[in-house]
Amino acid sequence: MIETGTPLPPLARGDRLTRLRGRLEELGLDGLLTVHGPSLRYLSGFSGSSGLLVVRGDDGVLLTDSRYEVQAADEVDPTIEVRIAGDGLFDALSELARDWPGSPRFAFEPAHVSVREKARLEQAAPGVDWTALEGLVESLRARKDAAEIARMGRAAALACDALEETLGRVEEGISEAEITAELEYRLRRAGSDGPAFESIVAVGPRSALPHARPSARTLREGDLLLLDFGAVVDGYRSDITRTVVAGAAAAWQRAVHRAVLVAHDAAVAAVAAGAPAADVDAAARESLTEAGYGEHFGHSTGHGLGLEVHEEPAVSRRSEAILQAGNVVTIEPGVYLPGRGGVRLEDDVWVEEAGARALTDFPLDLREL
Amino acid sequence: MIETGTPLPPLARGDRLTRLRGRLEELGLDGLLTVHGPSLRYLSGFSGSSGLLVVRGDDGVLLTDSRYEVQAADEVDPTIEVRIAGDGLFDALSELARDWPGSPRFAFEPAHVSVREKARLEQAAPGVDWTALEGLVESLRARKDAAEIARMGRAAALACDALEETLGRVEEGISEAEITAELEYRLRRAGSDGPAFESIVAVGPRSALPHARPSARTLREGDLLLLDFGAVVDGYRSDITRTVVAGAAAAWQRAVHRAVLVAHDAAVAAVAAGAPAADVDAAARESLTEAGYGEHFGHSTGHGLGLEVHEEPAVSRRSEAILQAGNVVTIEPGVYLPGRGGVRLEDDVWVEEAGARALTDFPLDLREL
Repeated sequence: MIETGTPLPPLARGDRLTRLRGRLEELGLDGLLTVHGPSLRYLSGFSGSSGLLVVRGDDGVLLTDSRYEVQAADEVDPTIEVRIAGDGLFDALSELARDWPGSPRFAFEPAHVSVREKARLEQAAPGVDWTALEGLVESLRARKDAAEIARMGRAAALACDALEETLGRVEEGISEAEITAELEYRLRRAGSDGPAFESIVAVGPRSALPHARPSARTLREGDLLLLDFGAVVDGYRSDITRTVVAGAAAAWQRAVHRAVLVAHDAAVAAVAAGAPAADVDAAARESLTEAGYGEHFGHSTGHGLGLEVHEEPAVSRRSEAILQAGNVVTIEPGVYLPGRGGVRLEDDVWVEEAGARALTDFPLDLREL
Repeated sequence: MIETGTPLPPLARGDRLTRLRGRLEELGLDGLLTVHGPSLRYLSGFSGSSGLLVVRGDDGVLLTDSRYEVQAADEVDPTIEVRIAGDGLFDALSELARDWPGSPRFAFEPAHVSVREKARLEQAAPGVDWTALEGLVESLRARKDAAEIARMGRAAALACDALEETLGRVEEGISEAEITAELEYRLRRAGSDGPAFESIVAVGPRSALPHARPSARTLREGDLLLLDFGAVVDGYRSDITRTVVAGAAAAWQRAVHRAVLVAHDAAVAAVAAGAPAADVDAAARESLTEAGYGEHFGHSTGHGLGLEVHEEPAVSRRSEAILQAGNVVTIEPGVYLPGRGGVRLEDDVWVEEAGARALTDFPLDLREL
């Protein structure tokens, strides 16, 4: 049967709304309107695919449609009123906006509102003075509380369990697609709400493609096998990568794996509250450069993780973020040798006031299957 | 092992680009810029998660990043140049735009460009005169050719196979989450590139929630079991729903199923090239109203299907679409009795010049497990 685990502490949405309202007040804004799934879920609890949330100083209203009537009643924070829109969200917004006196100043999320939606907002609520505000909800989401960390820890544990079970079933001749089927099956059975993102499973030279889609290519003796995937618990994601080898590792595979592991450890050691995220990226990059693999590490060292698989803060060369306690970031250096293969090692790391702690707990040594 | 099936005919992307250029010329436009995944895939073949495509009268350029270098070289239509952006897509666009003389008029997709992206486009290509054009690529995508229908037919067949295998393993006490695990495992093993969308598996009273997320609720004697899911082949999706009963069906379950089946058949019979989509919706709705269930059918009768699970044309009361040969639409009436259960029956129907043909082929009678 599917594992359900011990009960998790409730998510404190009231605190989030209080923090949001505090930020809005500081900015001289009267409210926030969002149609972005992760923002809706974070602020209101609603996880349906279609909704519009307005948070003002003294109230909150979620508009959705009849498909989600029961779900919204079940999920949404009790301080937020749910209205079922019979004729579309923007018609319902138009009705709602009649109750707003004057010309209220509302924030919207320019990265998550399409040009078409923006035009419809202006039409539905002509009295509103719209302010494009980048990263408002993202910055709240970036600092996880204990209830969120509990979910991310469980998502990490489910991914590790599924990986262990899957590796136990991998043998020569199995295809990338078959390994993916096993992995995602075991994720679900472990209790994950599906895969956290499109799983990457790549064997042999295909492991040198950082974003390979699982194919019919089969595993042969001596191949590297790279698995990059995650679990979902209450919307919170894990994201882990391990690279193993079919049979005895060749000297070049050991050398690449060793270099990536050293870079991984250097980056994890650089993670701390107050550290610039760019320094964490530099720790991995310099380590790989010293080992002679710098040119074969093309992507960022990591990214924030939570309700989305990529969120704040970025852990890249260009990141301007300073790590804060409560952040969860991936650390995932890799080396990719075209035509031969690649190695990536990825863990999810929780930034605490004094140091950092890995949520994923799976051996990092080079496993020979 | 995973099924791979007989080879499928190649996708004729050149034709699509020719049709697009024809439309642009009719509209007096010099080009189209898109960052929308399904548009990128449809027009260029590129299926990565990050890209920017510019199609002009005489050339086409796809910008993406180093993670997708090999994939883009493999996937992208040979008439389109691929450029790897080292410092972000918008910086690469800025460089590209230096080669555009005058003030070219470019279309963009207002539903698929965020307010932030729009600002970046304006900054990167200040000489361009941007025209918001709704549904340009969508209208091309809505008419599928034989190579696309071959993929959708296979996606439909894979879903039917996975459903048959899964139902063979369903017994009392199995949970919605476990059924989903089995279903998605069998989809992958049948050859699907993962599930087509978040699968809906709902038992007992939960079948009355049109968009239920699989839970730990277990199947009991007498429960309805609703499964709504699909397969993916080369990006093309299927979408099928069947509702069965655990053990012998009660009279009310038979009555509801019968009414939904009659409405389903009425709607399918109304599908034809030249028919208003709203008439197809009306056929199902009037049938259910006559049967006394009108108020328990809250959603649309169907939607277009292809590279996205919801695309043009809508099959709803308010749809203004006229069905065209080459459309593929779902027909999915349902009746939902709160607290008791719901029945939905969904097929994927291909609109041909003379009539219509179901791509999904799975018995519609009420199966008693």
